[in-house]
Amino acid sequence: MDIRKKFIKLKENSGSHSPSINTILKEIPEIKMKVDACFLSNPYATKLFLDYLHKDLIKTGEINRVLEFYPSQNDVIAKSISKSINVDSKNIFVCNGAIEGIQAVLHNLLKGKISIPIPTFSSYYEYCHKDLEAIFFNLKKDEDYILNLNEYSKFIKDNSINNVVIINPNNPNGFYTNRTEIIRFLDQNKHLDSIILDESFIHFAYENSSMDLETIQSSIDKYENLFIVKSMSKDFGVAGLRCGYMLMNHKHVSNFLSNGFLWNINGIAEYFFNLYSNDKFLKEYEVCRKKYITETVFFLNQLKELKNINILPSKANFVLVELLNGLTSEEVSLNLLIDHGVYVRNCSDKIGLDGEYIRIAARSFDENQQIFKALKAIK
Amino acid sequence: MDIRKKFIKLKENSGSHSPSINTILKEIPEIKMKVDACFLSNPYATKLFLDYLHKDLIKTGEINRVLEFYPSQNDVIAKSISKSINVDSKNIFVCNGAIEGIQAVLHNLLKGKISIPIPTFSSYYEYCHKDLEAIFFNLKKDEDYILNLNEYSKFIKDNSINNVVIINPNNPNGFYTNRTEIIRFLDQNKHLDSIILDESFIHFAYENSSMDLETIQSSIDKYENLFIVKSMSKDFGVAGLRCGYMLMNHKHVSNFLSNGFLWNINGIAEYFFNLYSNDKFLKEYEVCRKKYITETVFFLNQLKELKNINILPSKANFVLVELLNGLTSEEVSLNLLIDHGVYVRNCSDKIGLDGEYIRIAARSFDENQQIFKALKAIK
Repeated sequence: MDIRKKFIKLKENSGSHSPSINTILKEIPEIKMKVDACFLSNPYATKLFLDYLHKDLIKTGEINRVLEFYPSQNDVIAKSISKSINVDSKNIFVCNGAIEGIQAVLHNLLKGKISIPIPTFSSYYEYCHKDLEAIFFNLKKDEDYILNLNEYSKFIKDNSINNVVIINPNNPNGFYTNRTEIIRFLDQNKHLDSIILDESFIHFAYENSSMDLETIQSSIDKYENLFIVKSMSKDFGVAGLRCGYMLMNHKHVSNFLSNGFLWNINGIAEYFFNLYSNDKFLKEYEVCRKKYITETVFFLNQLKELKNINILPSKANFVLVELLNGLTSEEVSLNLLIDHGVYVRNCSDKIGLDGEYIRIAARSFDENQQIFKALKAIK
Repeated sequence: MDIRKKFIKLKENSGSHSPSINTILKEIPEIKMKVDACFLSNPYATKLFLDYLHKDLIKTGEINRVLEFYPSQNDVIAKSISKSINVDSKNIFVCNGAIEGIQAVLHNLLKGKISIPIPTFSSYYEYCHKDLEAIFFNLKKDEDYILNLNEYSKFIKDNSINNVVIINPNNPNGFYTNRTEIIRFLDQNKHLDSIILDESFIHFAYENSSMDLETIQSSIDKYENLFIVKSMSKDFGVAGLRCGYMLMNHKHVSNFLSNGFLWNINGIAEYFFNLYSNDKFLKEYEVCRKKYITETVFFLNQLKELKNINILPSKANFVLVELLNGLTSEEVSLNLLIDHGVYVRNCSDKIGLDGEYIRIAARSFDENQQIFKALKAIK
């Protein structure tokens, strides 16, 4: 019982986010964590990256130099990323985690109203300042919280909104909007001051059986008002590195770098971004990406076998699960964590959800089976 | 000649900072760098930290977990720092390098006029925005660019200045103002909106033969308008980690964290900050600190033997050197780098300096001897 209270307190202190595994292990060592299904990442990609890191930096002793000296400046690192995403480095704002970019844009560039479909990633409304009003667009429970872009366009017009957020696939429900629909929306909304398109989970989405990457990043220079957010913590499973970037009109990048954000990338993150321009690494990553998507699809289908839960449609690497067994999401997530060592996201603090929900990340095949068994035991 | 041109171009692209060793080695691999005397750090502390890192994270494989998962949130890490600096964690704003804190305060909190003694660290004026006017207080060449706080107070009053910067010891000249004088200044200037005291080099200053640390960090709660800047890149020689913090009134910390700066500390930086509350590590560090100061004092005295240069007074881990041999600072720094593999800071872009200057960091005893020989060869 004491562990439960400690965890609830820790969660309260983490605001609208989950306490990290590091914080949990430090503050409540009694918890025997087996699977972190709160963290939305591809574990195979993590392993691939760590294999490279051990070979390139640790075995050679090169890590010492990487940690001792100043990393390169922001614009130097942007050049590494440029090649692999086919975007001019002048459009790339490299970030200490994508969240730094979200913060920079919301704090410094946007004014007026910003529409945010909810449920969502809380920073999009929490980081609004006094001259930027968050206007919620309620995704509907009876439509499984999918984003209907026609309705969204009407809402934007009816409410004289000048800034817009779209997360694709959306977090926390994983709903994916097709590339052609996104492009149509961008074409129809060039008059808006900004469209923030968060593609942090795009590596897990797919439209065809070959699971090609459906990003629209290389179109950044076609839309002056477009901001694309890209976390690297999810697709590469390296949240501890703090790697992300945002794509935007070159004038904004140049303004940001002219009076800030000079050395915001640490040495190991710089090493990661250099790998990101390495063809061999990228080919191997592509294999990991497709393997992980395949197993995720299998796992999400498997979850549908369970009774008393409702699995929402997802093309991300996680799924939103509605609990229909009468227990609250707090009770279920604590039972999973303390009795089974499985850490999932209790969504009770997610505004815009009607009911009791937990969010479960897909992990490796074996971990997914542990998650499945634990959920089954909860009933 | 080609290498020289390449380096000059690289320097131009780095704005008012020096290109990092990483960038130089990547862009101009022909340069055989032996000693990085541009980077202002204690190499013995670097070695100490790296020994701990190899033992705790690399040999155990723990580094994988540190890089994979989300680090702790800002306020959790502040608690680690709290103990070793004897400051309440509510006053600690943990930063992705001290420069993130400088940027946050200049961009978000200050308005009006800010006085900056020059020569200085360029970000203090470059990060001012349209509602914050940088007013330069010229340190005088005929006084060896020392900061006279009585004159500075008069200047602040005469120019109706409401925000003030003091770097102690100052960068790039290393002049140190005694603790009691700083405290007198703080006591006399409580009416100002802000006093930014940058103590990034304070670990290298000393007032007595036991070389006790002279920081005033633990007095932060006595001055509502005080902001103390603390880089960890210099004293611990870990610039690649991006570790720093700022101390300030708890209301400002709370405001910053309420809508930003959530996961701005990477996993290895979090490990560093945990070490910073480890008594054994801190005791060993203290030995490294005093050894390094002792050798630095020896080196700076040794430099006085050289002809045709003027060594300015410094209690930091670097020294500003005026060149009196008729060569420009660009020529001398390029000769040192290309002919001798010694990288020093060409200060030709430092506003407020009258003459030709280079800044030389003290390194290990052996490296200092290489720097000395190279300088001697240049005459």
